[in-house]
Amino acid sequence: MANLKSTLPLSASPTLVFKHSKENIEGLVQHISSTNDIEYTQDPSSCFSKSKTSHSFAAPHETPTVVFCPKTTAEVASIVSACHERNVAITSFGGGTSLGGALAATRGGICIDFKYMDNIIKLNEDDLDVVVQPNIGWVELNAFLDKKGLFFPPDPAPGAKIGGMIAMGCSGTNAYRYGTMKDWVISLTIVLADGTIVKTRNRPRKSSAGYDLTNLIVGSEGTLALVTEAVLKVTSLPQNLHVGMAVFPDLQKGVDVAVKILKSGHLLEAIEMTDTGCIRALNHSGLSKQKFEVLPSLFLKFAGSKQNVAEQIQFVSQLCTAQGAKSFDASGDKERVDVLWGARKALGNAIVTMKKSPDDIFAHTDAAVPISQLAKLVGESERIVAETGKDWFVCNVAHAGDGNAHTGVVCPKEEKGEAEKILAKIQKLALELDGTITGEHGVGLKLRDLLTEEVGEAGVDAMRRIKFALDPKGLLNPDKVVRLDVNIYE
Amino acid sequence: MANLKSTLPLSASPTLVFKHSKENIEGLVQHISSTNDIEYTQDPSSCFSKSKTSHSFAAPHETPTVVFCPKTTAEVASIVSACHERNVAITSFGGGTSLGGALAATRGGICIDFKYMDNIIKLNEDDLDVVVQPNIGWVELNAFLDKKGLFFPPDPAPGAKIGGMIAMGCSGTNAYRYGTMKDWVISLTIVLADGTIVKTRNRPRKSSAGYDLTNLIVGSEGTLALVTEAVLKVTSLPQNLHVGMAVFPDLQKGVDVAVKILKSGHLLEAIEMTDTGCIRALNHSGLSKQKFEVLPSLFLKFAGSKQNVAEQIQFVSQLCTAQGAKSFDASGDKERVDVLWGARKALGNAIVTMKKSPDDIFAHTDAAVPISQLAKLVGESERIVAETGKDWFVCNVAHAGDGNAHTGVVCPKEEKGEAEKILAKIQKLALELDGTITGEHGVGLKLRDLLTEEVGEAGVDAMRRIKFALDPKGLLNPDKVVRLDVNIYE
Repeated sequence: MANLKSTLPLSASPTLVFKHSKENIEGLVQHISSTNDIEYTQDPSSCFSKSKTSHSFAAPHETPTVVFCPKTTAEVASIVSACHERNVAITSFGGGTSLGGALAATRGGICIDFKYMDNIIKLNEDDLDVVVQPNIGWVELNAFLDKKGLFFPPDPAPGAKIGGMIAMGCSGTNAYRYGTMKDWVISLTIVLADGTIVKTRNRPRKSSAGYDLTNLIVGSEGTLALVTEAVLKVTSLPQNLHVGMAVFPDLQKGVDVAVKILKSGHLLEAIEMTDTGCIRALNHSGLSKQKFEVLPSLFLKFAGSKQNVAEQIQFVSQLCTAQGAKSFDASGDKERVDVLWGARKALGNAIVTMKKSPDDIFAHTDAAVPISQLAKLVGESERIVAETGKDWFVCNVAHAGDGNAHTGVVCPKEEKGEAEKILAKIQKLALELDGTITGEHGVGLKLRDLLTEEVGEAGVDAMRRIKFALDPKGLLNPDKVVRLDVNIYE
Repeated sequence: MANLKSTLPLSASPTLVFKHSKENIEGLVQHISSTNDIEYTQDPSSCFSKSKTSHSFAAPHETPTVVFCPKTTAEVASIVSACHERNVAITSFGGGTSLGGALAATRGGICIDFKYMDNIIKLNEDDLDVVVQPNIGWVELNAFLDKKGLFFPPDPAPGAKIGGMIAMGCSGTNAYRYGTMKDWVISLTIVLADGTIVKTRNRPRKSSAGYDLTNLIVGSEGTLALVTEAVLKVTSLPQNLHVGMAVFPDLQKGVDVAVKILKSGHLLEAIEMTDTGCIRALNHSGLSKQKFEVLPSLFLKFAGSKQNVAEQIQFVSQLCTAQGAKSFDASGDKERVDVLWGARKALGNAIVTMKKSPDDIFAHTDAAVPISQLAKLVGESERIVAETGKDWFVCNVAHAGDGNAHTGVVCPKEEKGEAEKILAKIQKLALELDGTITGEHGVGLKLRDLLTEEVGEAGVDAMRRIKFALDPKGLLNPDKVVRLDVNIYE
């Protein structure tokens, strides 16, 4: 009898059948190469060696056997269709910057490397949208748009590609002002698990035409469909860029200023917060020309008309004084902008310089909470790490405008397990504060069990129901986001 | 054998079994009233008589047999669970302002009237969010928020309730500046078709935690789940409200101004466009104190700091002159704001006054196109209606900032079928212009076949796959958005 429930518990999941025998994979390669002219390699390091993130590729048995490099949506569909026919698992590769194990080929199978699908197809200037292939990077896209006075706001790690950014529903320092990927994708061309091609929408700015397939795919981490083309919104380039820095005696005062800016109606470009750990790392790294005072700080960005920027800066300056800031300064001088925002952008690399040994690891959270809870999250995070009594380096950097905080620790490799347990505690704290375990990095393999604590068994079971509805054989990036079978993959 | 495809064509849909015998419904009522203290009535007009829209309730056989009026999520879940057990179809009722047949109980069954679930549960001022039950209206919500200096932007028909607004993914005149419902819903508490309760997210502003159940439900028109609670974003109340009106010799010049405003980086509050038909209706209706020149016009709204508003107005004024506007004026005088925006808001009622006979009907489209195509859509719409040679009243009003245009016709009742065919032509034209058949009203019963032209058979089949995954018996608001069985319901 068919399951007539609305959810699918793990215990009721269908048995997964992957056919990854040498024979079946060779047959697949032969079939694909005889019907298409698609480049492929049996050396997975061809793409994975480009990956810069430690989490992105796991143990040796998690290696795909073949990597295909298609050039068109039709070619992707033909590969996926053949894999569906033969029960072969599919992972995909773009910029290789994802975290949390999103790229691990847990079941083996094949990988689709999107490296040849990196074109900007069409810019529609009057409509403020651009049609792109998945492997264009946001940095490259912005270099192109900049010449037209346009701008695509989501700004994760510099190597990230649009396809992966869609997969993870990512954001970055511009998200408070401009929103996340969800807010910048108009339409997607996708290939479903059986090779069916769907275009989720046309190009209007808004639509109420049926279920929102676009946003179902954004953030689905390659588990529901592969994205082969996207229509993205773009906006006009911010004018009169200014930066500001406010230094506070304690973190709560900084959060108070951020809350008051949000409620004021003034729309800044970015409101980033760093704790003393971050400042220590910056000063220690030598990556910034400036030495900063070791206190909690807000890094602010302003743009708009000259008058508007002047008003914003005056407002924030007065606010900082009223809230007991130790100092506030702002500038539109290009060198100052580069130094200050450069320091904020260098933070990730600066933290890595806090390793005492080259083998030390850097692990971090991605919690987001309602902004009123941000100071509590960060304060408690510091306390939770301190309680371990470990001599780890710890720091907190927050996208304060949207309550997203990364607690980072640098610790010896041997203490990785312990560090991850501590970070999980902080993520659970975020849940207690009505927040999320992941504001922008995604679930991957790492956060699946915490996801159950966030949306409940019923929520995860509803997600699993959707996964198996669109991918009944469980072939697309298996084991990510939700567990697929009781033979738990760890 | 299970269907291992990613989509579900109509021909492969399961057979629907509704058990609406008098006996089964009476048993249901008895079960629910014996285990809960839930008010119910067997007179469906108790709620439907409140409905103000002609499309919202269809033929007599499309009447639910019983209307339940629950007060809590748990009560809704108990009703839905009992209906699932007994194969009884469920429609729901909120403000009764939906269009396109969204409320028609095509299969009979029961209705859930949310009238007792109209509370504001909690305002989180510092987090700029508010927790509400589904039957609070956006007008009432804004009356409450206004006292706190806050504001909830989506502004459809005045009687609309939050639950229905979520169901339809609606918007209104504020959407260009603030986005649609999708942009203002943080999290939902939903009851799935088998009575399972899911909370889609906590309260952080952003999240990458698993599939986006929230946005899957927004715009799903009550077919995937019932919404029993919502966390909504709010923002600060616009300051220094000014309005402006620009009059153009032709429509294209007005669109050109709108495009240039969008690309300028200036963020106005609203950019609405009316053609000569609208102006004639306004003048004819006597609903506005002002008589307007019968030419295509932009109605503009500005807000922000005084300086900012002055800059915006200066920019638009110069732009209008450069683009050949016949006139432009702007004012922050409260009376002028009320007269001008009141005229824009009175437009719907003004058009109704163009009826030559009280029996005449008013029918309209809801197409949205990339803004560069807006003048073409409106111009061609006028031509398509003129071609009929009918002496119908026709007009076009557009949310120009996001390319959403409503072509309205007033015609004799007997010509309703013909009018609908003409409007369908305009909607198809919108598709040719890379647009959508519905920017903000939803699919309902009316637009199901055009939806196939918009997202293709594969897109609709993927949506049907999701429908049956979450609602395997097809009980929730059946026949809306996608067809459920080959015994086509018309």
